[in-house]
Amino acid sequence: MKIMKKIDFDTISVVVLEEVKTYTGEEIEPFWAFKMFDIQKDSIIGFNGPMNVKIENMKDLKDIKEEQDIKTPIMSSDALNFIVEHFDNPDLKMIYLRQRILVSIAKDVIENYSGLKLKKSGDDLYFNEKKLSVCIACRGVSSGKIHLGINVKSDFVPTHVSAIGLNDIGLSNVLEIMEDIAVEYANEMSKIERDIRKTLPLF
Amino acid sequence: MKIMKKIDFDTISVVVLEEVKTYTGEEIEPFWAFKMFDIQKDSIIGFNGPMNVKIENMKDLKDIKEEQDIKTPIMSSDALNFIVEHFDNPDLKMIYLRQRILVSIAKDVIENYSGLKLKKSGDDLYFNEKKLSVCIACRGVSSGKIHLGINVKSDFVPTHVSAIGLNDIGLSNVLEIMEDIAVEYANEMSKIERDIRKTLPLF
Amino acid sequence: MKIMKKIDFDTISVVVLEEVKTYTGEEIEPFWAFKMFDIQKDSIIGFNGPMNVKIENMKDLKDIKEEQDIKTPIMSSDALNFIVEHFDNPDLKMIYLRQRILVSIAKDVIENYSGLKLKKSGDDLYFNEKKLSVCIACRGVSSGKIHLGINVKSDFVPTHVSAIGLNDIGLSNVLEIMEDIAVEYANEMSKIERDIRKTLPLF
Amino acid sequence: MKIMKKIDFDTISVVVLEEVKTYTGEEIEPFWAFKMFDIQKDSIIGFNGPMNVKIENMKDLKDIKEEQDIKTPIMSSDALNFIVEHFDNPDLKMIYLRQRILVSIAKDVIENYSGLKLKKSGDDLYFNEKKLSVCIACRGVSSGKIHLGINVKSDFVPTHVSAIGLNDIGLSNVLEIMEDIAVEYANEMSKIERDIRKTLPLF
Amino acid sequence: MKIMKKIDFDTISVVVLEEVKTYTGEEIEPFWAFKMFDIQKDSIIGFNGPMNVKIENMKDLKDIKEEQDIKTPIMSSDALNFIVEHFDNPDLKMIYLRQRILVSIAKDVIENYSGLKLKKSGDDLYFNEKKLSVCIACRGVSSGKIHLGINVKSDFVPTHVSAIGLNDIGLSNVLEIMEDIAVEYANEMSKIERDIRKTLPLF
Amino acid sequence: MKIMKKIDFDTISVVVLEEVKTYTGEEIEPFWAFKMFDIQKDSIIGFNGPMNVKIENMKDLKDIKEEQDIKTPIMSSDALNFIVEHFDNPDLKMIYLRQRILVSIAKDVIENYSGLKLKKSGDDLYFNEKKLSVCIACRGVSSGKIHLGINVKSDFVPTHVSAIGLNDIGLSNVLEIMEDIAVEYANEMSKIERDIRKTLPLF
Repeated sequence: MKIMKKIDFDTISVVVLEEVKTYTGEEIEPFWAFKMFDIQKDSIIGFNGPMNVKIENMKDLKDIKEEQDIKTPIMSSDALNFIVEHFDNPDLKMIYLRQRILVSIAKDVIENYSGLKLKKSGDDLYFNEKKLSVCIACRGVSSGKIHLGINVKSDFVPTHVSAIGLNDIGLSNVLEIMEDIAVEYANEMSKIERDIRKTLPLF
Repeated sequence: MKIMKKIDFDTISVVVLEEVKTYTGEEIEPFWAFKMFDIQKDSIIGFNGPMNVKIENMKDLKDIKEEQDIKTPIMSSDALNFIVEHFDNPDLKMIYLRQRILVSIAKDVIENYSGLKLKKSGDDLYFNEKKLSVCIACRGVSSGKIHLGINVKSDFVPTHVSAIGLNDIGLSNVLEIMEDIAVEYANEMSKIERDIRKTLPLF
Repeated sequence: MKIMKKIDFDTISVVVLEEVKTYTGEEIEPFWAFKMFDIQKDSIIGFNGPMNVKIENMKDLKDIKEEQDIKTPIMSSDALNFIVEHFDNPDLKMIYLRQRILVSIAKDVIENYSGLKLKKSGDDLYFNEKKLSVCIACRGVSSGKIHLGINVKSDFVPTHVSAIGLNDIGLSNVLEIMEDIAVEYANEMSKIERDIRKTLPLF
Repeated sequence: MKIMKKIDFDTISVVVLEEVKTYTGEEIEPFWAFKMFDIQKDSIIGFNGPMNVKIENMKDLKDIKEEQDIKTPIMSSDALNFIVEHFDNPDLKMIYLRQRILVSIAKDVIENYSGLKLKKSGDDLYFNEKKLSVCIACRGVSSGKIHLGINVKSDFVPTHVSAIGLNDIGLSNVLEIMEDIAVEYANEMSKIERDIRKTLPLF
Repeated sequence: MKIMKKIDFDTISVVVLEEVKTYTGEEIEPFWAFKMFDIQKDSIIGFNGPMNVKIENMKDLKDIKEEQDIKTPIMSSDALNFIVEHFDNPDLKMIYLRQRILVSIAKDVIENYSGLKLKKSGDDLYFNEKKLSVCIACRGVSSGKIHLGINVKSDFVPTHVSAIGLNDIGLSNVLEIMEDIAVEYANEMSKIERDIRKTLPLF
Repeated sequence: MKIMKKIDFDTISVVVLEEVKTYTGEEIEPFWAFKMFDIQKDSIIGFNGPMNVKIENMKDLKDIKEEQDIKTPIMSSDALNFIVEHFDNPDLKMIYLRQRILVSIAKDVIENYSGLKLKKSGDDLYFNEKKLSVCIACRGVSSGKIHLGINVKSDFVPTHVSAIGLNDIGLSNVLEIMEDIAVEYANEMSKIERDIRKTLPLF
């Protein structure tokens, strides 16, 4: 897993993998970016490949409740995957706010590439009522993490979910889209850091 | 200032004023929602009217530096104004993350009404490189606050800014747009509170 | 475990179980209220039943040290049990402050029902130097939790503890007492949320 | 203001003034305990004397709204006053939780001295529907503060309030009550610090 | 004030002024680095010049108490001044911990240049029981700030203080020392950010 | 492990063991000080003995990566060991700032005893480019912990590390050095608590 492109912002690193990699749910564990890529900043890692998450690696209790008699609940034959990690604040809500920002950025980039209008509901993206993405945010003791998976293909998604993929809406340059989303997220986080440092307090 | 519509979510109240009110910069002060409307939750207040902010009520030091020989730097003859207040976390970054979410929601709602595609850069919205909005996030001791102002008309905006308003892109039902943005923001904040309470931690 | 009464406050839900349930120590684990009752707010759950906690489910290191050659250290044939969960702040001290408030409320409600005066020492309640309750507060990554157990009967409490139960002080309407304590706790937490939003800061 | 009794707990100092002192609202300002008594810990200061707070020193916006055409809204000819200051956490909610604990302790001590049962509603104490106390919690940048005032006499309280004082319920040893409340508060805060350091986390 | 050297670390900027500037106490105010140098990171600014702080610009209440009948309490004809600002955490203690690290770094750099051994007591540096430095840490709503002033000359220091300056211990290359201290502080803060991101949590 | 000297500061306890004890890596686990010595404050424990840490007890991912084919990576036949635990703030950065302060204090004490000048780089101490110490800071849910190990002897250190011990630089009174470092650390933490309570905020 060494063929990659790395772009460094002040407080966050972007890594885009150039080889296919499956998302198994282990990538959501803390320090995965350090273990794999020696990154010692906050980070967003993008990679393209299947999603195949076992129930024991799932973090959303609602999904776990609903899916517990289904063998592989989060599954896609081809997806864009993003793994985000932030170490700056122990509050769980912080990583959830960032999750919504990441999903909004993904929505905006895909809309710009496709000329279509998507719908965001919470942390999910839809086109024509069909589900385009899965997303989770969670925290360990030291860091908050996000996984966002955007279907490239829609086959192999569990049949009870009406799904759609980027290919289905006419997008094939998915690696370019992946990099744009990751870079725009890093850019937004960096700009917030700068904005904090130029705003007078209230009295 | 008593003619209004109030929608209560569990942790946040939405108020939409039905009379015209000018944004003077005083509305960004802490506890404005309590003083005016007796709200004792987090809140988003929407109102339609001019923006006319004196330099001494401005909070963005970059604007203050740039504008200091101009008499009224933030000015619009007609705008949608949103005032957000959250009391839940003393970290300044929290209110900035929420500011970006509010701006993304405004962008999405306006795109849906207009069928046009806007551009978000940091906390600003643009159409055809023309500035549609102004925004600031800041903190006092007890709460974080946001002001988002979206031009309805583009006259009277300071001449060195290339501006555009909702009327210029064909939108006249601005009160409906205002309510949709405010409700969607409250909805997103409420959903995040619920999401936090169903996600397993990482180990 | 479906027969229950649910009362919703803005930021906290009260659930009172109407069937007998044993407290085993597993109920203190994070997300128990979501797993059992699909609650996605802060919560206080009250239930009546025995307490029977194994050493491996105990959280108070002092108890563990003292009790390690005794088979079942926290034990009661009949008790009122309260399980509280809050997700709003990662500071451990917060849940301890709330624990004291819960114990004070329990004391006040029982005094009002009985006409007797109890003694609170730390997180313990006593009548005539006899122990009426056990309590623990603790934290996981995402939430803080409290268990308060109030003896209804005093038999089966470990013999080295001089115990007393609600029945021993003449109280038999224990389900009513249980509901009053849970509702008053939710009420107090809700009022604090409102109070925060009407108090000027200091300079 | 030098005649006083000082009792030091590990993390909090108790000071009890032995001379009469009026509460004017200035004592709620941050660092008052350092300025007056050179205390460099968290602290609770108790003193006996009138309350006479001008509107510009009031912090409760609800009171300010209601009272703004009355000359001196918080007023008592003789009261027990407690000033608490904590520096340990920037979260506003923390000081509110502590405020409730202080009021509960005051209630318990007065009940023990009088043999009567008081009623606590939020941060207020009542006997026979008559108001016995006033209380406020608030925050500056560095610290959280509480003022609790318990009427000793009930004359001179604003006439629209139905008030009662400790003298009216047969208590005259008010300095003793004052010290007991202050010491018990310090004791509770100290015990919480110790409890935090013996409780296993949850997983 | 434009002649300067700027060294950018990921999360902190170092600025070393090349012209003489007096420290008046106004430099401790929040956002001074942004207002003067447009810095939108955390920062350490070093400059050489007199110290001349009026009582109304002092932040240490102990000094204010002691010095209140002396005209200019913090005064030096020639000093190295460091102004630090961090925006990352609202806890007051954080900036105090950093203050001690800055003073330790200054001590180490001066020891290396001089071959002499200094003594650090709290936030003060001494040589032969003579005071070499003054230091303060404090917080506003948005940021924590530090001022460290190291005497270059020891004349004009208030006569009740036994003072010494870098010149008195044989050091004349004070601009080089100033830069080394500032760079080493930025280096230490940067390394801590990296260390946080490679350390497993405890269970 | 009962022969010890205990010195109590207000918020932190110092314990110095008088018998030899090996550092195995288990001492870094949360609540070790309570389990072994019943300490219910923050604490620094000093003991003299070998270091022998298995890879599964190591917390520094960089070390783990580098050392994974070496049998015992952190090893010394004789060392001064310090175990620090703080419960006051859930932010990971806090314990890292304190780690640097502890290492600076160790450096200063050893320099004073030896008359030699050490070099600190991050959290490591060197003499003549030879490594004198190992150090780690980390967090659990409830507390932050530090281990600092200072070689007394330099034999048995892994051969790929160029090491040195206190004996090698002429120091044999290591128990005295150990106590001085532990007491000075507790003294510094105590003074910071007091400093926080005498400093005016910024506006």
